[in-house]
Amino acid sequence: MAADWRIEAASIAVPGPGQFLVRITMISLDPAMRGWLDDRPSYLPPVAIGEVMRAGAVGEVITSYHPKFKIGDLVQGNFGVQEYAVSDGTAVTRIDPKLGTPSMYLGVLGMTGMTAYFGFFDHGRPRAGDTVVVSAAAGAVGSIVGQLAKINGCRAIGLAGGPTKCGLVVNDLGFDASIDYKEANLRESFQQHCPAGIDVYFDNVGGAILNTALGQLAMHARIVICGAISQYNAESVTPGPSNYLALLVRRATMQGFLVFDHASEYAIARKRLAHWVKEGKIIAPETIVPGKITDFHEVFLRLFAGDNTGKLILELNP
Amino acid sequence: MAADWRIEAASIAVPGPGQFLVRITMISLDPAMRGWLDDRPSYLPPVAIGEVMRAGAVGEVITSYHPKFKIGDLVQGNFGVQEYAVSDGTAVTRIDPKLGTPSMYLGVLGMTGMTAYFGFFDHGRPRAGDTVVVSAAAGAVGSIVGQLAKINGCRAIGLAGGPTKCGLVVNDLGFDASIDYKEANLRESFQQHCPAGIDVYFDNVGGAILNTALGQLAMHARIVICGAISQYNAESVTPGPSNYLALLVRRATMQGFLVFDHASEYAIARKRLAHWVKEGKIIAPETIVPGKITDFHEVFLRLFAGDNTGKLILELNP
Repeated sequence: MAADWRIEAASIAVPGPGQFLVRITMISLDPAMRGWLDDRPSYLPPVAIGEVMRAGAVGEVITSYHPKFKIGDLVQGNFGVQEYAVSDGTAVTRIDPKLGTPSMYLGVLGMTGMTAYFGFFDHGRPRAGDTVVVSAAAGAVGSIVGQLAKINGCRAIGLAGGPTKCGLVVNDLGFDASIDYKEANLRESFQQHCPAGIDVYFDNVGGAILNTALGQLAMHARIVICGAISQYNAESVTPGPSNYLALLVRRATMQGFLVFDHASEYAIARKRLAHWVKEGKIIAPETIVPGKITDFHEVFLRLFAGDNTGKLILELNP
Repeated sequence: MAADWRIEAASIAVPGPGQFLVRITMISLDPAMRGWLDDRPSYLPPVAIGEVMRAGAVGEVITSYHPKFKIGDLVQGNFGVQEYAVSDGTAVTRIDPKLGTPSMYLGVLGMTGMTAYFGFFDHGRPRAGDTVVVSAAAGAVGSIVGQLAKINGCRAIGLAGGPTKCGLVVNDLGFDASIDYKEANLRESFQQHCPAGIDVYFDNVGGAILNTALGQLAMHARIVICGAISQYNAESVTPGPSNYLALLVRRATMQGFLVFDHASEYAIARKRLAHWVKEGKIIAPETIVPGKITDFHEVFLRLFAGDNTGKLILELNP
């Protein structure tokens, strides 16, 4: 809630030797950020009370004492929810305008695209002809996964909430079919759209949808656990997937992954994704909300309200 | 319950051309048999009402019109819960006394040993030095898995119920430690015995133990879903593992498998297991109960009462 955040004014930090100063223009909003707020061990330490909120962002270098980053460079990095950030260049990517726009470096060419690419190819291990089901298919990651599935010769079925998103998924993103999880009988819809079972289930939501999907697996299916947005705000322990023994019956695999483990391969994935975008094989939906740093909380909540499509970005003082 | 079974007397079937008749001497009792009784689709069709109960068994060929099986041959096959069976040789293995005894062909050299071998090596993907946790460690499969882990240079931690079984696991089977799941604080015990986390969790029981183990995974851990004996007799839907998002945090894999898929490799696995038994590196605990075919139901229930160790076998009219 709003009271959980504090806006602090501070003088703009001065970069030291080997550092540079970035004026942030766009901040990435991702469901994973919700997890970083929980005070428990995870793949990254929790954001401590009083710390700047962790976030991916893009901006322009406006002061530099770093040999590789020059004034005027557009950069993407983990700059946090702030207007200016000092960096020593760690995990900072210089934006190549030939590959894409700054917002794309937060989306299809950034963490979102990398998550879709490595989650789908490395962990989903798709074969042409496979039936691939994606939850949160209108979201930043899911939208890319479905299009990668099509490029890979698979059938892509997208789960989304409401007719608008379901229309986007099929008409704009080119999925073969969509399922409105708010309306449909999920089990019957899976049986209708996946008559030979689900080969790859790419899960962003968890909960009942994951459990129902487990009941519809094809032999040797792969379930990729990318996220579980349905559970991030749960007040109590949410039920696990009681159908997990389907893994045994179907000789299936449920695997979690983190995009950070693939950092050494980001560059090649980024080039491929940029190429597919240029070819028109991938459309990267974005919701860019103009605003001020004080709007962060409100825009962040859109992720969980279910009314956002594609990559959600707060554009600062455009 | 007893009323769910019917004992039928019938004249001994006469084998036709290409068939042979087996006098069954030992019947294998396995937790998986419980699943075959549920009237729902699974990896094998349910045993229909009125059908002979499906079961592995060993016996002696007493009549034969089959070119490859001779009178006097000892054989292992899916002969069912009966005193005599007719077979055409499908999925029948001739017992090689140089490799082991008939009861071993139901246990360490049979389905049990194959399940342990392929589940552990192919799906657990162990490396020397890994910490391997096995549930139902005093059971027919778990006892073998832990000993394979030791042969493979791993640390083996066994979960079992009560001091007798826990003693067997450590003192006779050579596990590095045991955890009495009925007494211990599971989470603390895992932390004590697996200070660097669990690399391979070989699960035969499901339920709360699986869920707690999920919270203690090492990076890139492999969870092998072999069975879930704690759930087979559940009257209602049992909860799934709510900690499954640990798969994401730990980049871990939860995989189900069925031993039947490895049939083409049984022979080599059987030779290796027989070799390790001869060397004394594997002890194959057995509980052989002498009785009549009418004792099947009572002996079967021992699997679920938790008072059985190792391979449970009903020896007919010894």
